Amino acid sequence: MDRQDCVYLDHAASTPPFAEVAAYTAALIEQFPGNPSGVHRRARKAAAIVDEARERIAKATASDPKNVIFTSGGTEADNLAIKGPAFALRKEGLDRIVVSSVEHHAVLDSALWLRSSGFKVDLAPVGRDGLVDLEALETLLDEKTCVVSCMTANNETGALQPIREIAEMVREKAPHAVLHTDACQGFASIDISLERLGVDALTLSSHKIGGPQGAGALVLREGIPIEKIAHGGGQELGRRAGTQNVAAIAGFGLAAELAALRRKEFCEKTKSLRDDFERRVISSFPWVRINGAGAPRLPHISNMAFAGLQAEDILVLLDRRGVCASAGAACSSGSLEPSHVLVAMGLSPKEARSSVRFSFGHTSTPADVNSAVSALKSALSSLRPSRSDDRVLSRT
Amino acid sequence: MDRQDCVYLDHAASTPPFAEVAAYTAALIEQFPGNPSGVHRRARKAAAIVDEARERIAKATASDPKNVIFTSGGTEADNLAIKGPAFALRKEGLDRIVVSSVEHHAVLDSALWLRSSGFKVDLAPVGRDGLVDLEALETLLDEKTCVVSCMTANNETGALQPIREIAEMVREKAPHAVLHTDACQGFASIDISLERLGVDALTLSSHKIGGPQGAGALVLREGIPIEKIAHGGGQELGRRAGTQNVAAIAGFGLAAELAALRRKEFCEKTKSLRDDFERRVISSFPWVRINGAGAPRLPHISNMAFAGLQAEDILVLLDRRGVCASAGAACSSGSLEPSHVLVAMGLSPKEARSSVRFSFGHTSTPADVNSAVSALKSALSSLRPSRSDDRVLSRT
Repeated sequence: MDRQDCVYLDHAASTPPFAEVAAYTAALIEQFPGNPSGVHRRARKAAAIVDEARERIAKATASDPKNVIFTSGGTEADNLAIKGPAFALRKEGLDRIVVSSVEHHAVLDSALWLRSSGFKVDLAPVGRDGLVDLEALETLLDEKTCVVSCMTANNETGALQPIREIAEMVREKAPHAVLHTDACQGFASIDISLERLGVDALTLSSHKIGGPQGAGALVLREGIPIEKIAHGGGQELGRRAGTQNVAAIAGFGLAAELAALRRKEFCEKTKSLRDDFERRVISSFPWVRINGAGAPRLPHISNMAFAGLQAEDILVLLDRRGVCASAGAACSSGSLEPSHVLVAMGLSPKEARSSVRFSFGHTSTPADVNSAVSALKSALSSLRPSRSDDRVLSRT
Repeated sequence: MDRQDCVYLDHAASTPPFAEVAAYTAALIEQFPGNPSGVHRRARKAAAIVDEARERIAKATASDPKNVIFTSGGTEADNLAIKGPAFALRKEGLDRIVVSSVEHHAVLDSALWLRSSGFKVDLAPVGRDGLVDLEALETLLDEKTCVVSCMTANNETGALQPIREIAEMVREKAPHAVLHTDACQGFASIDISLERLGVDALTLSSHKIGGPQGAGALVLREGIPIEKIAHGGGQELGRRAGTQNVAAIAGFGLAAELAALRRKEFCEKTKSLRDDFERRVISSFPWVRINGAGAPRLPHISNMAFAGLQAEDILVLLDRRGVCASAGAACSSGSLEPSHVLVAMGLSPKEARSSVRFSFGHTSTPADVNSAVSALKSALSSLRPSRSDDRVLSRT
């Protein structure tokens, strides 16, 4: 499916479901499992499907199934992760929130919105490599901190944050805080568990790991205080109202199981493709910079700054040549603002606007790299044919 | 699918998708449309699918596509409908919220939650028939009212509220208020539009009208003030963050179009089945009461009070006989509380706990009625064989 119409290098925005997952999800939609809330056989069947998915997510994150809260996606899970504990802990007088300055907008904007409810919100700065500045973070944590959030790996640059060090610091300096990590991009390549990362809560998104769109989860450590933000029915043990999307949740559970099983293969394959792509681009265009290259990175993401150019121009030319890539997060596409992630890393707005994200996935092939390098060379030569430090263009 | 394993009389909880809708949705999941937020061909294709669905919803509700906000379902749309305008209008000093006492919990609990943010929330009482007491409502409305919500038709009893009269009253007494109606249950049988109902906002749910689970919409009149409640990306014109669930939204759009086309047929068929069912039950058990029978009702819902019995016991026996029904809203199943809807109508908690909802749908048949009547007779005779006012049981 993926290969038919384009060279798809936007897997970080949404990656195709695994074939088994697509078939399972599609079949469930046709079979109509029904509403899991009910006391009859149809409802029990639907509930059993959701429970199986819950156990799969729990197993894939070494957590307890009863602490897996299904949501409509990563954004809703992030909103719940920030607002839920904040509202719960406000009653105990805790009112400080600290999130990294490179969080996905779902975390960042949830935190900033809480200012209108009286919370004090600080953004922890990052270095040029995109990693949280631990010394600066330490000064922001205190006894009144209720929520700290730092993503496992950045969705734009792939930078892997030092979550375990952050967790140790939070336990010492902000002992009452709930520590959350958005693991949406990291799950496909990193063994994600609350214990291993040392966090209290983590967000997963189905369509970033080979599952269908429309499902996500917030996974909690036992006993984490949380208020619901979606009000209504008593679903998800009273922590998230709304009829569960049975087919999407089922596909999500299977995808998590498969992604965990295929993690090593995913890492090796995408790293090999990504590194080859970067090597060939830099070899032809030594002036291209890899944003966040100084940090440990996810294997499937490459974020490149094309100095003096506009990402939009490059993307349009790539698209004409059949290559799908993006300028930072898909969620911010159409925005006139430069990437807040790249600006937080110290890039100028102009540099940030020159940056393109290429992201590989489970369906990517060496032929994709060839096509993408070709298309990029052709695009760049038409955008800045006269650049003196370009090496001689050799067609791949 | 629906006919294979049970006599399904819980369509108000979730109705099977139309065959065309299931096929379309399933095909899209297998094809992977991708993330609509992006600047490449794959993203544009996904965005075009979402836009087509948006136009279908707009057409089915005689509204403007740009004022259709897709959500993960009816619950999220209800949350947005109450909290969104409340937060927006608080800045203008409006702080009163009035909702009917028989609203779905998604509306009711959203409103009650806003008390913690300083809003004054009143519940408009209903009469024995479940219809809003207009005189009482009038006393609750004033210049400081920011949100009024009254459902088009009740999900437990099917009672059709006098929305147009309520709208006129709200315009006069609460001129700054946003008037919302939850039309999730009503859409399949009533021509729903903002203009026709006289409201500012309406909620639809996909899986109540023949669409897949996982999609819903809040449809707004032009210029209605609303703050987002799901923070993050700029999707849905900045009014609802989160990657759109393309396949579910596409199926929802098609379902709305088909449901509107099939409305007359749906009404005639379900009313005929429902009325036949009620007639036969009452004929055998004259002591059974139809809750809300005094009000104009949706054609597909029957809510029956079985005095002296427990709904749970009846449901278990029906389920053993292959009949799926429910005790009030699916979202409240498992709750120990009696239905707030029936209690608001003046039933005692004991009467409310004796009540069972049977709901018909597009796949229902006369054979379902025969089976349900048989199963109910058998269940009731085993639960209260000695009731003197029962007529002689005749097997169907």
